[in-house]
Amino acid sequence: MTLLLIITGSPSDLIAGAFSKLEPQRPVEVWPVNPGAPEDVRYILAWNAPAGVFQKFPNLEILFSYGAGIDHLLRDPNLPNCPVVRYVEPDLTERMTEYVVLHVLLHHRRLLDYQDLQRQKIWRELPQPAASELRVGVMGMGVLGRDAAQKLAMLGFQVAGWSRSQKQLDGIECFAGESGLDRFLARTDILVCLLPHTKDTEGFIDRVLLRKLARNGAGPGPVFINAGRGPIQNEADILGALDEGVLHAASLDVFETEPLPEDNPLWTHPRVFVSPHNAAVSEPRAVARYVLEQIARYERGEPVENVVDLARGY
Amino acid sequence: MTLLLIITGSPSDLIAGAFSKLEPQRPVEVWPVNPGAPEDVRYILAWNAPAGVFQKFPNLEILFSYGAGIDHLLRDPNLPNCPVVRYVEPDLTERMTEYVVLHVLLHHRRLLDYQDLQRQKIWRELPQPAASELRVGVMGMGVLGRDAAQKLAMLGFQVAGWSRSQKQLDGIECFAGESGLDRFLARTDILVCLLPHTKDTEGFIDRVLLRKLARNGAGPGPVFINAGRGPIQNEADILGALDEGVLHAASLDVFETEPLPEDNPLWTHPRVFVSPHNAAVSEPRAVARYVLEQIARYERGEPVENVVDLARGY
Repeated sequence: MTLLLIITGSPSDLIAGAFSKLEPQRPVEVWPVNPGAPEDVRYILAWNAPAGVFQKFPNLEILFSYGAGIDHLLRDPNLPNCPVVRYVEPDLTERMTEYVVLHVLLHHRRLLDYQDLQRQKIWRELPQPAASELRVGVMGMGVLGRDAAQKLAMLGFQVAGWSRSQKQLDGIECFAGESGLDRFLARTDILVCLLPHTKDTEGFIDRVLLRKLARNGAGPGPVFINAGRGPIQNEADILGALDEGVLHAASLDVFETEPLPEDNPLWTHPRVFVSPHNAAVSEPRAVARYVLEQIARYERGEPVENVVDLARGY
Repeated sequence: MTLLLIITGSPSDLIAGAFSKLEPQRPVEVWPVNPGAPEDVRYILAWNAPAGVFQKFPNLEILFSYGAGIDHLLRDPNLPNCPVVRYVEPDLTERMTEYVVLHVLLHHRRLLDYQDLQRQKIWRELPQPAASELRVGVMGMGVLGRDAAQKLAMLGFQVAGWSRSQKQLDGIECFAGESGLDRFLARTDILVCLLPHTKDTEGFIDRVLLRKLARNGAGPGPVFINAGRGPIQNEADILGALDEGVLHAASLDVFETEPLPEDNPLWTHPRVFVSPHNAAVSEPRAVARYVLEQIARYERGEPVENVVDLARGY
């Protein structure tokens, strides 16, 4: 019942160590250094694996994603015919909520403006609405979106959520589908994107959408925060919207091309926060705990959690 | 039953307007422009009033502070012999919690480091502990401190509080008095000061105290956040601690001298956030609502809330 790690861009040995520490008797192999006998591999934990690699393992029973999104798996046209499981863990959720709350608060509290004033040694108070006057809109109301929305509501913000299918959530106004989109945007001062990358969301955040955000808010103007996936945003449109004043500021953790190319003007835009796709990193110990728990459920004959609907894409 | 506003540094007319809008029949005067007949004044709402001014009003029944602290009143050696009432309002509490949560998160998530990397166009992930690995300590566990502590705990931080008298609070480890101070500091990575300014707290945050903070934490090292009062901190010691590495970074909203003098090196220190004593501003409508509610209680013969213990100083 070997578990194989096919993880690009993260230290696989460290991750393998986290597994061994929790369950020393579980055979864990790291690809490509030591792929073991392909037919022994029953489970794979993958991140940005090379296309086609999964076909080498005829007895694969569960494919785990080393991250909340599974877009990196769906790029493979030859996905194995077994359950694909997303990474859903309180540690990851907390990290994402930290990022979202931090960036909503820093725009709300005009941190960039106060940093400018500090550089000029100017002691000046700027107009400051209360959180209760600000309307945050969260797109994508899965586990991550719901947690961020609830924490923002606890801090006093007026929070709404938008998702493909209608949700119900205490204290959060829920909009759904195409028919609810314009009303959701029209009441939103700070837009937070936690959508998955699917064919429906690709290029979704464009100039047309950004123009629909509220322009009569108590704060300094529309702000866009993306901690979902880069291909959801049209970066040329975001830059245009910033320069035309359609957008006041942005916090971007994800990009059309990652790492963000050195000549991309987002790096130097004075009203953009760039971070290296680390809003919510997968912590090896937390991932190992989660994957081993799901494997244990499976081996006891219980249903595995967070199985992806491949047709829907998340 | 006239209410007189003696408010320095804020637009009194705007504040008077907030009162008139809520209770048009209540006579509200603004000092010094239009002081009315001194004997008609029963209530005063004050902020940084000139020393001795209250003695001009022989029939004063309640003195209200236009702010959470009453240190600005205690500077007057001839305080009237009537109840002094602090400003305690959800709007103020929410604003303070915003500031505290924002600054805890931005140090936790290494915003300064990521801004540096962005300036250099470097795509690099830095080690990031979980909130649950970070220990925040809040000094001053009144209404403001308790709310900030609870919201930080909800975000996953390990939170402790320290106060003069022992408190009990779900999910918050509570330390008290001199005997609990060293243990509180030794378990604290990020220290948040929300203490009132009294003779006991003056100069309290000094090099000796900062050296007692945890030095073995999961984060980048001790951080100090002050949204209490400036005279509580020894700024020379804070600068020394920053430069010696005793302190990793600081967020200061209050200062020994305000406005912060242009030649104060805190303005330009690369690891200090300076803000102009606006962590929690008193919003005129919220203050008017609060003061009128307390006056109504008083005139109905009910006890007024948040009366200050002048001997204790808060």
